[in-house]
Amino acid sequence: MKSALGFLVAAKRCEIQGLEQLEVTSGLVKGVSELVHMLQKERGVSNVFLASRGCRFAEQRVERVDASLGVEAAVRERFGQLDTDSGRMAGGVRLFSRIAYVLHCLDALPELRQSIAAQKISADEATRSFTGLIAGLLAVVFEAADTAADPVISRALVALFNFMQGKELAGQERAVGAAGFAVGRFELADQHRLQNLIEAQERCFQIFTEFAEPTLRAIWRNAEIAPGTTEVERMRRIACAVPSARLAPDASDRWFDCTTARIDAMRQVEDCATNALLQLCEAKLDEVRADLHDHKRFLDTLSGLGARGTTPVAVFFDKAGAGLEAAPSSAGGNLLEADGLGPKLGRSVLDLMQAQSQRLQTMSDELNTARAALNERKLVERAKGLLMARRGMSEDEAYKLLRQTAMNQNRRLSEVAESTLALADLLRPD
Amino acid sequence: MKSALGFLVAAKRCEIQGLEQLEVTSGLVKGVSELVHMLQKERGVSNVFLASRGCRFAEQRVERVDASLGVEAAVRERFGQLDTDSGRMAGGVRLFSRIAYVLHCLDALPELRQSIAAQKISADEATRSFTGLIAGLLAVVFEAADTAADPVISRALVALFNFMQGKELAGQERAVGAAGFAVGRFELADQHRLQNLIEAQERCFQIFTEFAEPTLRAIWRNAEIAPGTTEVERMRRIACAVPSARLAPDASDRWFDCTTARIDAMRQVEDCATNALLQLCEAKLDEVRADLHDHKRFLDTLSGLGARGTTPVAVFFDKAGAGLEAAPSSAGGNLLEADGLGPKLGRSVLDLMQAQSQRLQTMSDELNTARAALNERKLVERAKGLLMARRGMSEDEAYKLLRQTAMNQNRRLSEVAESTLALADLLRPD
Repeated sequence: MKSALGFLVAAKRCEIQGLEQLEVTSGLVKGVSELVHMLQKERGVSNVFLASRGCRFAEQRVERVDASLGVEAAVRERFGQLDTDSGRMAGGVRLFSRIAYVLHCLDALPELRQSIAAQKISADEATRSFTGLIAGLLAVVFEAADTAADPVISRALVALFNFMQGKELAGQERAVGAAGFAVGRFELADQHRLQNLIEAQERCFQIFTEFAEPTLRAIWRNAEIAPGTTEVERMRRIACAVPSARLAPDASDRWFDCTTARIDAMRQVEDCATNALLQLCEAKLDEVRADLHDHKRFLDTLSGLGARGTTPVAVFFDKAGAGLEAAPSSAGGNLLEADGLGPKLGRSVLDLMQAQSQRLQTMSDELNTARAALNERKLVERAKGLLMARRGMSEDEAYKLLRQTAMNQNRRLSEVAESTLALADLLRPD
Repeated sequence: MKSALGFLVAAKRCEIQGLEQLEVTSGLVKGVSELVHMLQKERGVSNVFLASRGCRFAEQRVERVDASLGVEAAVRERFGQLDTDSGRMAGGVRLFSRIAYVLHCLDALPELRQSIAAQKISADEATRSFTGLIAGLLAVVFEAADTAADPVISRALVALFNFMQGKELAGQERAVGAAGFAVGRFELADQHRLQNLIEAQERCFQIFTEFAEPTLRAIWRNAEIAPGTTEVERMRRIACAVPSARLAPDASDRWFDCTTARIDAMRQVEDCATNALLQLCEAKLDEVRADLHDHKRFLDTLSGLGARGTTPVAVFFDKAGAGLEAAPSSAGGNLLEADGLGPKLGRSVLDLMQAQSQRLQTMSDELNTARAALNERKLVERAKGLLMARRGMSEDEAYKLLRQTAMNQNRRLSEVAESTLALADLLRPD
């Protein structure tokens, strides 16, 4: 039977195992972010290719397909490296379901590409297929972030997920803008859609800024003040001006170029973020492994002393209570000297235990904060969907209603979304 | 490399593994609830033994010690059966830390009992030691409830944890009351303490009622209207009346008897609850195993068909999107007939996928609700602790301030506690 100290070592082992899994998942996330970027680019050129009836970007499209295929193979290999056999992957139920969906979409890609090459599919339809696949890949990142049990890594993943979401929304903004500039004017519905995409991006980047490390925040701030961004802002203003003026014929190309430059700059930030994530995992693992080593050394020392007749494990506790709020036993407190370690070593071990206890509590609090941010967007999306389905609202109307309600009641948007979902039964269609 | 369907099967395998672990944990929780009951009884008789300077309950105490030792051995054996070696126990970091603390306290029990037998320890001090150990055991149940990934079982565990907390508070109420009736009057501080214990019990039983299955709720309602309860309520009224009258000399025994009867009735409910929990785990496991069997049969069928030339896995998806909110790919939708299964079978698999997707979302929502209830008490305790430390308030004052604030602002107690903790820095001592 295991001793108290044995269970402390077992707890540490679980922490290491969790971090090792997180390292694998973070590598996967890195691959996924590359694939998303490739698919965003392929979606962009495919869109122009189809919209121009095959006149433009024919060669670039073939190049982009090749680039996507290379990264896809790497991601599939990473999927294959996951522990799918033991059934013991933390969060495996959701993560594996997401991956199954992604694989299904990837399997359907060759057929989609044939349809695009033969121009047998509309630009809109092709875009929807790519967007569905990208959403699936983002969902994989979401699950990875949601299962991370280390608060620092969890924060990094929450930041990264929101950044990737923001970048994807920027890609969608590019598509809507390119279409509008190409036909030479923006309908009111397009302007609303653009405004929504811009606002949603800002929300994503705000959460990113809240959760990212200072270095990453600085890199992102620099990317945002690049000259290209000014041009994007100028063209956004033109696109959203009411009534919309006739637009210059080359506007579509200029829009495509400056938004592409912006998205490429985002990709640089994303790349830094995924690399930092992997380094974070390694550093944490080193730390916890060193911890375990210390624990084991203590265990050995104490086992030797234990032979002299007292329960060696008592030294690991006393009034610290291993992280419990309740008043712990007062018995055992005076064993500190009896076991031959002397009060000084005993006290230092005690400090170790208290630090561990506080660490568990802080970790739990921070994890809750990170996860709440992660779920916020999801809640708002679901509340919007509910209003659209039950009240026949447009996405735009639904979002505005939620936001207005939040402002009127001085509550967070996510709280209003939560209440809305809780009242789903009251929202049956009239 | 794994196919999409392979990942769906892997997800199912994770679900089974999680439930198997939950079954082991639930068995552990059952053992822990027995041990808590034994220790509560031993604490009660030890208390009377010490307070009466060894005149009363000397024999009963020896009997109770034997009873505790038997159940302790069983619980230690269950601890030993846990998977401590692989480092892959879900929630292992916290659970194993809690168990380490419990084992430490259990190791100190023989010494505590010697001190009690020799009357070398005060009744208060002995009670504190037992109470610390019981709090540690309850923390083990808390961790088990917090890591359960199945919402139905999680609800059952949340109900059970709150019931056990309520029962422990009832035990503490018995001790405070017994002391007051023994000396023949209650000081104001004792009356406050009694009132707090009664209110805290009610909160626990209220959460229990919210989360327990109807059958268990009914059993608890019946236990609450038993004749003994009326006597408890009558004596509570006497104890809390101001100014307190001189009390009859036999009041202490009558109080001890009727509160003990009430606690024993609670034990019956608890016993039903732990048995129901185990049955629930078994039933869930049967269900999910049957599911996996179906998945595998489908997989075999499809592999056979796949040899005829199409990608068999496409049939598992289409527009369902495996649980993603995003618009999924529209490609692949017309593969349903091409793969030889025909639209009917294809459709039924599609329904299966959609059901699975909805189930994941519902599970996640329900889990969040259950965990929120679990954390509520913890938040309030920590906010109280903060006010006590920073503002020098008594426990009673701190609780009243939180409750009053909640009432004034028409917010939940837990929300006020959360805000209090968030503002910790503003509460530095004056």
